[in-house]
Amino acid sequence: MSGAKFERIALIGIGLIGSSISHAARRAGLADKIVGSARTPATVKTALDLGIIDEGFQTAAEAARDADLVILCTPVGICGAVTKEINDAGAFRDGAILSDVGSVKAAIVRDVLPHVPEGVHFVAGHPIAGTEQSGPEAGFAELFDNRWCILTPHEGCDPSAVEKLSAFWEALGSNVETMTPEHHDLVLAITSHVPHLIAFNIVNTAGHLERVTNSEVIKFSAGGFRDFTRIAASDPTMWRDVFLNNKEAVLEMLGRFSEDLTALQRAIRFGEGETLHKMFGDARALRRGIIEAGQDTDAPDFGRRASVAKDEADED
Amino acid sequence: MSGAKFERIALIGIGLIGSSISHAARRAGLADKIVGSARTPATVKTALDLGIIDEGFQTAAEAARDADLVILCTPVGICGAVTKEINDAGAFRDGAILSDVGSVKAAIVRDVLPHVPEGVHFVAGHPIAGTEQSGPEAGFAELFDNRWCILTPHEGCDPSAVEKLSAFWEALGSNVETMTPEHHDLVLAITSHVPHLIAFNIVNTAGHLERVTNSEVIKFSAGGFRDFTRIAASDPTMWRDVFLNNKEAVLEMLGRFSEDLTALQRAIRFGEGETLHKMFGDARALRRGIIEAGQDTDAPDFGRRASVAKDEADED
Repeated sequence: MSGAKFERIALIGIGLIGSSISHAARRAGLADKIVGSARTPATVKTALDLGIIDEGFQTAAEAARDADLVILCTPVGICGAVTKEINDAGAFRDGAILSDVGSVKAAIVRDVLPHVPEGVHFVAGHPIAGTEQSGPEAGFAELFDNRWCILTPHEGCDPSAVEKLSAFWEALGSNVETMTPEHHDLVLAITSHVPHLIAFNIVNTAGHLERVTNSEVIKFSAGGFRDFTRIAASDPTMWRDVFLNNKEAVLEMLGRFSEDLTALQRAIRFGEGETLHKMFGDARALRRGIIEAGQDTDAPDFGRRASVAKDEADED
Repeated sequence: MSGAKFERIALIGIGLIGSSISHAARRAGLADKIVGSARTPATVKTALDLGIIDEGFQTAAEAARDADLVILCTPVGICGAVTKEINDAGAFRDGAILSDVGSVKAAIVRDVLPHVPEGVHFVAGHPIAGTEQSGPEAGFAELFDNRWCILTPHEGCDPSAVEKLSAFWEALGSNVETMTPEHHDLVLAITSHVPHLIAFNIVNTAGHLERVTNSEVIKFSAGGFRDFTRIAASDPTMWRDVFLNNKEAVLEMLGRFSEDLTALQRAIRFGEGETLHKMFGDARALRRGIIEAGQDTDAPDFGRRASVAKDEADED
């Protein structure tokens, strides 16, 4: 996989995704050197201590200097500003590939492109992988294994840069697909953004009831609610930026969700058992497809049992 | 725990919950004999083959005869009819305790009580535990460990029967709490029923888009959507009955959910980043409470990694 190798990879931002890229790149031997930057000195120190980066900086420009692959692993909202900062410092290496891992793509292409100099090849990307945890300690080498990474080349994007970045993500363990930034944003609105919004929302609804206490919500969460709290525990800044930058697709999908929910609500109000049964039955088929596609485990309850058993064993 | 022992336990319905009760009761030595009934002969055979029941029947009345504990493990909607069937056959043993495991309680008390004869003690109950899987093969002894079981004694309910059933559930591994049937239905509407409804709904919304294919939804589900599909894979008949029998509380909670979602939607439309950030941040605290209360694992991604690793090891 020599086509996937780089001399110097710069990670701008060293959270869950940035640190996992480092672990996976080291596992596959994809970089001579991995450097990174974070605004918080403690994050840089942790990343150095954990061996995630070989050299650490507090500014993006310092980290990006001389790198042949620069990956923006920051919240979506600052990708444009960070690119400008690197470019203003003249720190981009000629011929470098610039990419990102943001959960929205059209807004990032719009924000980043104006600051990418001649001779630097921007290819926007999004690994569909993550956990609810944040920070450099949260990363691990297997995060991208058998997950999809979507690359969204814009008009005029360099095909050989797309090819090289594609090989890189495959070497990290991912399957790669390309599509337009706009289509990506529509797909992710339904597979990720709206589910997160709904999860945040129901957790807050539950937290503000008068007749049911928070302690009751917590104790009896095993009925289904706790699944929602997991994804609602994701990083608030990251998600704020996602919603502000994929407004139209999210609002469109949210409109359809609400329309469908109103129909279900009506079926409950009027006691239409057959309608409910049919809608619930349909949902099972999609779950089966996800498991067959290797995108989730079919261990009951996500295999929580195995993980609880492991926690207990660890305590011995 | 001799106060929790029974001579003959009859399970009416041998699905995930019925079979798990059997496994957990055998683990704790709580029954001399466990019998059961299911309408489908294949289910009875499977339950006998797996040692879940010592004797199997196709009618509830045959199974309940001579049992000192009868537990209705059927869908909520038929609990009343099943009780009537047992009573009409004169099959209730004098002094027996009758209970159930249904996810709604007021409707069950209303439906069951008229068919409970003098000298038989009905105590409604609901173990807050489950997985998305169904059938006798899905049960396991640890399902109730450290989960809550809610008992909802009605007016005039026999206190010593409540005490004995309480001891039984504790011996199965649960913590026990008692509350009124009405309060139970309100609590579960938010911790279980509305989350399931929302999960069913978004899966169906995703399945009916024109501009995003089902294959795309499946491939890119790791962004959050797949969590929803797990709980949407639960038994459709069980859930239909839940919504038809807890209509008022579900509609109330759904109204609040929609109200809150509209506010979030508006914040997205008008780009109110601070509002979004605050709401997302609040949701994290509740997750922390659930983990501290031992009601979920804090392994990232529910410990799916451990379970995937286990699946792979099993294949070797």
